[in-house]
This record gives sequence, C-alpha cells and structure tokens, in this order.
Amino acid sequence: MADESGDEQPKYLQIADALKAAIELGTYGPGARLPGENVLAPQYSVSPMTARRALRMLTSQGLAESRKGAGFFVQAFQPIRRRGIQRLARDQWGSGKSIWTADESRPLDVDQVTVEELIPPAHIQRMLELGNGETACARSRRYTLDRRPVMIATSYLPYSLVAGSAITQADTGPGGVYSRLADLGHPPVHFREEIRGLLPTSQEAAALEMSLERPVLKICRTAFATDQRAVEVNEMTLDSASYVLDYEFDA
Amino acid sequence: MADESGDEQPKYLQIADALKAAIELGTYGPGARLPGENVLAPQYSVSPMTARRALRMLTSQGLAESRKGAGFFVQAFQPIRRRGIQRLARDQWGSGKSIWTADESRPLDVDQVTVEELIPPAHIQRMLELGNGETACARSRRYTLDRRPVMIATSYLPYSLVAGSAITQADTGPGGVYSRLADLGHPPVHFREEIRGLLPTSQEAAALEMSLERPVLKICRTAFATDQRAVEVNEMTLDSASYVLDYEFDA
Repeated sequence: MADESGDEQPKYLQIADALKAAIELGTYGPGARLPGENVLAPQYSVSPMTARRALRMLTSQGLAESRKGAGFFVQAFQPIRRRGIQRLARDQWGSGKSIWTADESRPLDVDQVTVEELIPPAHIQRMLELGNGETACARSRRYTLDRRPVMIATSYLPYSLVAGSAITQADTGPGGVYSRLADLGHPPVHFREEIRGLLPTSQEAAALEMSLERPVLKICRTAFATDQRAVEVNEMTLDSASYVLDYEFDA
Repeated sequence: MADESGDEQPKYLQIADALKAAIELGTYGPGARLPGENVLAPQYSVSPMTARRALRMLTSQGLAESRKGAGFFVQAFQPIRRRGIQRLARDQWGSGKSIWTADESRPLDVDQVTVEELIPPAHIQRMLELGNGETACARSRRYTLDRRPVMIATSYLPYSLVAGSAITQADTGPGGVYSRLADLGHPPVHFREEIRGLLPTSQEAAALEMSLERPVLKICRTAFATDQRAVEVNEMTLDSASYVLDYEFDA
C-alpha cells in the first residue's frame, strides 16, 4: 500500500522484515532457531545492538520468542481459535459444557480464581444499570494453555441477581455462569462483544507473563436477558500472540 | 489480577499509569494538554527522558497524541464503531448503500485505490481455491476519516469470476463489490472474519501514518457464495486507536 519513496528504512526494520518474510516462506519453521545477533550483525553490516533490536521486534510481533541464553526461536505456539458466535450458542452452555470447549480440542485451564462482592468501576455500574452503592459479584480468572497464560478476565454480575447461587462460588458448576443465570430465570439471549487492540498495562503484562511491547486484545462482552437487561459484563484481556478471534455469520 | 508483590514498578510505568488513571477519571478530557516532561520530571523526581518515555507510552496506547513543538494531548479522536454483523447484512449492500454507512454517521473517505490483476500470495490462492497461475483481481484501498488514515485493505477476488465487471474498476458502483457479485450471480451469503492484534510492519505504519509502537487490528474476511465457494478475501489493517470492533448476536 505504502508509496515506495526512495527513503531508506532503518536497518533494524530491514532486518526484521527480511526475517519475517523468511518465517512466512517457511525458511524458518515453527520452533526453529533464528540466526543470532552474532550472525546478523556482520551479514547486514550493523552493530549487534541493531541486530538484537530486529530480533526483539519479531518477539513483540509474536512471531518469535527468546529463550534465556539460547537465542531467538520462531513462535511454535499455535494460536487458539476463539469462535465468537458458535461458542455462545445456547446448545453449548445449555448442554452443561463450558463455552471454552467450542473453541478447540486443547483444553484451557483456570489457574487463578477470585470471587468478590464489590462496587464495580463506574462504566460497569452504568452498563449493568446499578444504583448508587449497589454491588456486583466480580469473578476474576486467569486462563492458561499448557501452563502458558493466555487470558485474564473479570466478569461482573449484579450481586442482587446472583446472591446465593453458585455464581458467587469459585466453581459455578456444569455449564458455568450462563447455566446458573438460566436456573435463576435470566438466561442470556443476546450478546455484544466489543474488541480493541492495545498495548498491555504493566499489571496485565505481569499477569499474562508477556512483554510490554506485545499487544493485547481486549474483549468486553455484555450478556443480555430477554427483558434486554444486561446481566453480565465480562472484560477479557488476551495475549494477542495466543489468539485468533473468529466470527462467522450469514449475510 | 496480578499478584501485588512488593516489586517496585519502573518509574515511567508509574507515571504512565497515573496519567492514564487521570485521563479515565476525566481530569484531562479529550483534547486537553497533558503535563509535559518539564512538569512531570520534578514532580516524580525523574529525568526528563523518563517523563518523556511515560508520555510516549500513552501515545503508543492510543490514549494521547503528540503535536510537534506543542506537547502531548489527550486523544480527542472518537474511535469508529465497526458493526461486524449488521454492516454485512444483505439489506445493507443489497440496498445500494456502502457497507461503511452501517458503522456510523461520520463518512469514511477512500483516498487511494489501486486495482490490479495479479497472482496473489499463496495463502490467498488456497483460500480462493485458485489453480496454478490463476490470477486474482486485487483491490487495494486506503480509508480516511477527517483526513486521518484509519484503515488499509486489499480485497482479492478470482479474476475469472469478475472479469469485465465494475469490480475491476476503481469505482464499483452502488452497493460496491457485494452488489456486483450479486449481479454476477454470486451474492455472498456467509462471512467469516478472523481478527488478530499485532504491531504494524513498517509499510503499514507508513501507510497509516502511525507509530510503529501502536498495535494494529488485522481483519481477514472471507465472503462465501451459496455453493460455499469463497468469492472474496479481504485483508484489512486498522489503526487500533481508530477502531472498536462490535459484534452482536443471539445466543
């Protein structure tokens, strides 16, 4: 797309683009070791620091990962394909399955769960139409795949709606939160997912054990019950190198 | 979510997080000037370089923008809400409207168009099921809002399918490519959109006139005709600071 003017690109970008092209062509396959700075520096007549900058650029793009003392390797992790619409179909959670099982065969683990009653942030109060001082049940979780943290998420539900149900427990039981909402007479019938791309905050990067220079995908999902009432807002933060979001729908 | 260990965050992150919180609280509203490095440095007992790093971090997160010589300002640009499903409904393009008009009232402009016949990249050949040496019609466009580049996109269609139609022209006529595909007897009936978050390549950043440190959202859309044949693949690159993607659907 860019007009190709005569401007020279900085060297580290030239090197990064060349390595990227070689990865895309399969010259370096998944898991392969990339040439190190000691090889790239003389090859491109640059300093080792410049070569290293090119390699770091690939890691922040999620194309490579560095291993302590061993160098840089082509990313071998196959991103999770998250099927936005199929996974939330009623026959998925209605059958007692976790919605994650729609995504793929590799199971996600939840290695951190906290459940609290609290006054949620102002934008959540507005979305859930909570009155002054009304509390929410906040469920924060971290999801991992093969021990790699891939997502953190916090769900908010009006506390008055879910008090006494398993939604206030760490284990929500078969079919999860949406099955319990159905038990309570408020099955979600409509969803909105809003997606943004951002760099992570330092807390998010720490929780996801990822570089501050690699983007995250933010998904804010609102679940609506039959009376168009918002019964849940779920704020998710996904490591962009771990996910492809997939929405399929008819014209 | 992160375990709050006693570890001190680097100063520039502390400053960036404090400014971010102040922006979210509205202390600095859209378009407001942020305190400069000469104010932040003594306030946080850091070097001007560290203060500047915090401000640059906000720009790469799309929260602020720098203006030459004038300092840093809270991002005043309201992101475009792109309605993934409604905008592709048949009664949208079927009525002769551009699919962009579903998104919002602010009109997008196309300021660059190129249309070519070419052999597409290997993954596009596979997706369009093109035989060896079969060509595609490639339509590359740049979209702007208030002269700000917000998206670049390249659509690929099997050339043999669209030869002689307005799809091979810069101006595809009312209702655009999908209306013309319908005229040709191949209306799209099903769509898949795959979304990734990445840092831009240097060419993408140049075309979108954005920082290399700010993420882009990549949307790869495949349009399928009644016989499940893929009739178009559209690879879009969106400035993440300009867009919120919105998908609404029933359970």
